[in-house]
Amino acid sequence: MSQALVLQTDFGLSDGAVNAMNGVAFSVDVNIPIFNLTHDIPPYDIWAGSYRLLQTVTYWPEETVFVSVVDPGVGSDRKSVVVKTNSNQYIVTPDNGTLTHIQQKIGIKAVRIIDEEVNRLPQSGASHTFHGRDVYAYTGARLASGVISFEEVGPELPLSSVVTLPFIEAEKHQDQITGIIDILDVRFGNLWTNISRELFLSFDVQYGDTLEVTILQDSRKIYKNLMTYGRSFADICVGEPLVYVNSLDNLAVAINQGSFAKAYNIGTGSSWRISIRKAPKIIYN
Amino acid sequence: MSQALVLQTDFGLSDGAVNAMNGVAFSVDVNIPIFNLTHDIPPYDIWAGSYRLLQTVTYWPEETVFVSVVDPGVGSDRKSVVVKTNSNQYIVTPDNGTLTHIQQKIGIKAVRIIDEEVNRLPQSGASHTFHGRDVYAYTGARLASGVISFEEVGPELPLSSVVTLPFIEAEKHQDQITGIIDILDVRFGNLWTNISRELFLSFDVQYGDTLEVTILQDSRKIYKNLMTYGRSFADICVGEPLVYVNSLDNLAVAINQGSFAKAYNIGTGSSWRISIRKAPKIIYN
Amino acid sequence: MSQALVLQTDFGLSDGAVNAMNGVAFSVDVNIPIFNLTHDIPPYDIWAGSYRLLQTVTYWPEETVFVSVVDPGVGSDRKSVVVKTNSNQYIVTPDNGTLTHIQQKIGIKAVRIIDEEVNRLPQSGASHTFHGRDVYAYTGARLASGVISFEEVGPELPLSSVVTLPFIEAEKHQDQITGIIDILDVRFGNLWTNISRELFLSFDVQYGDTLEVTILQDSRKIYKNLMTYGRSFADICVGEPLVYVNSLDNLAVAINQGSFAKAYNIGTGSSWRISIRKAPKIIYN
Repeated sequence: MSQALVLQTDFGLSDGAVNAMNGVAFSVDVNIPIFNLTHDIPPYDIWAGSYRLLQTVTYWPEETVFVSVVDPGVGSDRKSVVVKTNSNQYIVTPDNGTLTHIQQKIGIKAVRIIDEEVNRLPQSGASHTFHGRDVYAYTGARLASGVISFEEVGPELPLSSVVTLPFIEAEKHQDQITGIIDILDVRFGNLWTNISRELFLSFDVQYGDTLEVTILQDSRKIYKNLMTYGRSFADICVGEPLVYVNSLDNLAVAINQGSFAKAYNIGTGSSWRISIRKAPKIIYN
Repeated sequence: MSQALVLQTDFGLSDGAVNAMNGVAFSVDVNIPIFNLTHDIPPYDIWAGSYRLLQTVTYWPEETVFVSVVDPGVGSDRKSVVVKTNSNQYIVTPDNGTLTHIQQKIGIKAVRIIDEEVNRLPQSGASHTFHGRDVYAYTGARLASGVISFEEVGPELPLSSVVTLPFIEAEKHQDQITGIIDILDVRFGNLWTNISRELFLSFDVQYGDTLEVTILQDSRKIYKNLMTYGRSFADICVGEPLVYVNSLDNLAVAINQGSFAKAYNIGTGSSWRISIRKAPKIIYN
Repeated sequence: MSQALVLQTDFGLSDGAVNAMNGVAFSVDVNIPIFNLTHDIPPYDIWAGSYRLLQTVTYWPEETVFVSVVDPGVGSDRKSVVVKTNSNQYIVTPDNGTLTHIQQKIGIKAVRIIDEEVNRLPQSGASHTFHGRDVYAYTGARLASGVISFEEVGPELPLSSVVTLPFIEAEKHQDQITGIIDILDVRFGNLWTNISRELFLSFDVQYGDTLEVTILQDSRKIYKNLMTYGRSFADICVGEPLVYVNSLDNLAVAINQGSFAKAYNIGTGSSWRISIRKAPKIIYN
């Protein structure tokens, strides 16, 4: 039995590109279970690709092979690599920052550069723009199916060679935690922050407590208001905002059955800071 | 061999949520054939989720396990259930109205509440917002693969406990049939009504007959005009409207190669009534 | 082991149509590996359906069965056929032009009309609008799984009966090559032309050469400017245009990390002509 092959790209599903990758993998071994992570990574958004890997790899078995192709530098001298993670899974990708979250949160055991002399789809030499098909899907399929071992991917590289994007950790200062808005829960417009449940709970908050949430883009204040810390959407009224722990065990901000991101035009990335503190008790005399 | 597992959500495919559900199922048993119904149910639209189940279950074998997660009440006291249908298939879902069409048109044999003490992904207790992954996909995969039997899902509930949305049947009054616009054939903008072919044929209409079609939103008239009853789009000119029997054996209204829904801003649900009668014969002397 | 079944439609994935096709195929044989080419062919765009087949079939093994349903004439007398290609693959489709690119570039060995007396989903006679499910998916699955042989599809037709759309070849006149914009690389907005690498290289161009690119819609000039012929996007700056050889070995035009199609409102089809010649050397004294 082959290991699973899980594909992620920014190609979309409207043309034949992803299907060609499927065909290449199926041609390597008809028994590979092939899955899609997502192909809707915003074009060239390496950060989102990195994040989505972290969001999903832990739900797959050891030895699963992930192929992630968000590759604005295709054809440049960016390296094509396969890494083995501390959770014994493989990620096949251009080494352009896609491994940022995995390196930070799961850890990488070993990196090998793909030797394209052997690990490249035969007769595909003329095109220089579709390594997703010719190099990554092909190598991933060969690894998943056992045609090659991890060692046969190519020469080992030092762990320190892995390219990562700047990674900001959330911090606690006195009565306030500050982090960034990492990414959106796209469909529902919820904000997913980099503030972990652990850090947040060091605050000694309880479900139902009121929090003051401030959102800045660079130095501009975008939002400041009170909201409830809820266990889930069921704890509040439709249309009301809340802070909750998301499915990755980080703090998130939402409007119940509305889109917080659309309501306040919120974006993502390191320029989008979010601060949370317990609401000051106001006593009227 | 495992039974098929068919997944439906309103999560979209742009992030990692559906893939995490796939990974959970694959981790239960690598041999489960996993399929997507659709993940584009409009957010929180329980009615649409209910309808899409009816649209598809009959094309799958007995014992197929469907998981449907449109779950605005996640974290509330809405129950998580598995039902066995009269066609011997299983549906794993929050009991919030998602079973409306199946109960009405196919019938439910038995209902069991999911016992989350045993049927919940290990170590997933901290997140209260992603039951699709932690409870539904996990339980569906265990049922499809035979790890648990239907009885092992949890305690049986009375059939009468199943939550359903108000369900309106089409009716015939003298020379006119009135129903509602159940849903759109999204991509093409066709209107799918709840008027069955059987009821319609009791009218004694023939292909090529002219019908008078009236559409009201509440009491406001949105459309009233004549159109042909056709066997298929090939019977009329491009751009012409027609009434036809759709792939679910209900009446539908379309513009050939155009979008009826966009042309007249038509929506769906019980406030959207449609009436059809044979066009009065007009004789000019 | 069954052969792979690869499905393409213009149905989208937002409702249950494609899933019903999956269910029909799975019901024929649970062991068929089922894949999606794309279901986002623009509604009724037979040309795009034809092109996407050419883009992908070569990456799949011999004996793979493709089902392509872009079928504005469903219910008319357009024929339902299965062809065997020169590369020993099968395509199940309405014979309405969908086979244009395959016939031109790969070649067709044999054509058979589907005998709907035997090759139609049992009990599906009443609906005349969903042959994708009732005829094409059903027949494709039976062929892929070996339930029927190619001969059992139905009677053979002459190769000359295959319906094709007008097909324009690129041409070289003196120092200029003229072709059409066949299709877009939708997600990235790149223009894919029908000018082959072979024809282009007869020009004796080298990576880094400057080319003059002119785009006309009918007789109206839409774009005329100089750009570099690059090996890949890595050869130029972000935001710069380039000519490159795409993953199908044809010339393409792009803006690095931008959308050429959106920037200049470029469309596709035979009215969109593109001409390329080596830039005249300008010497300033």
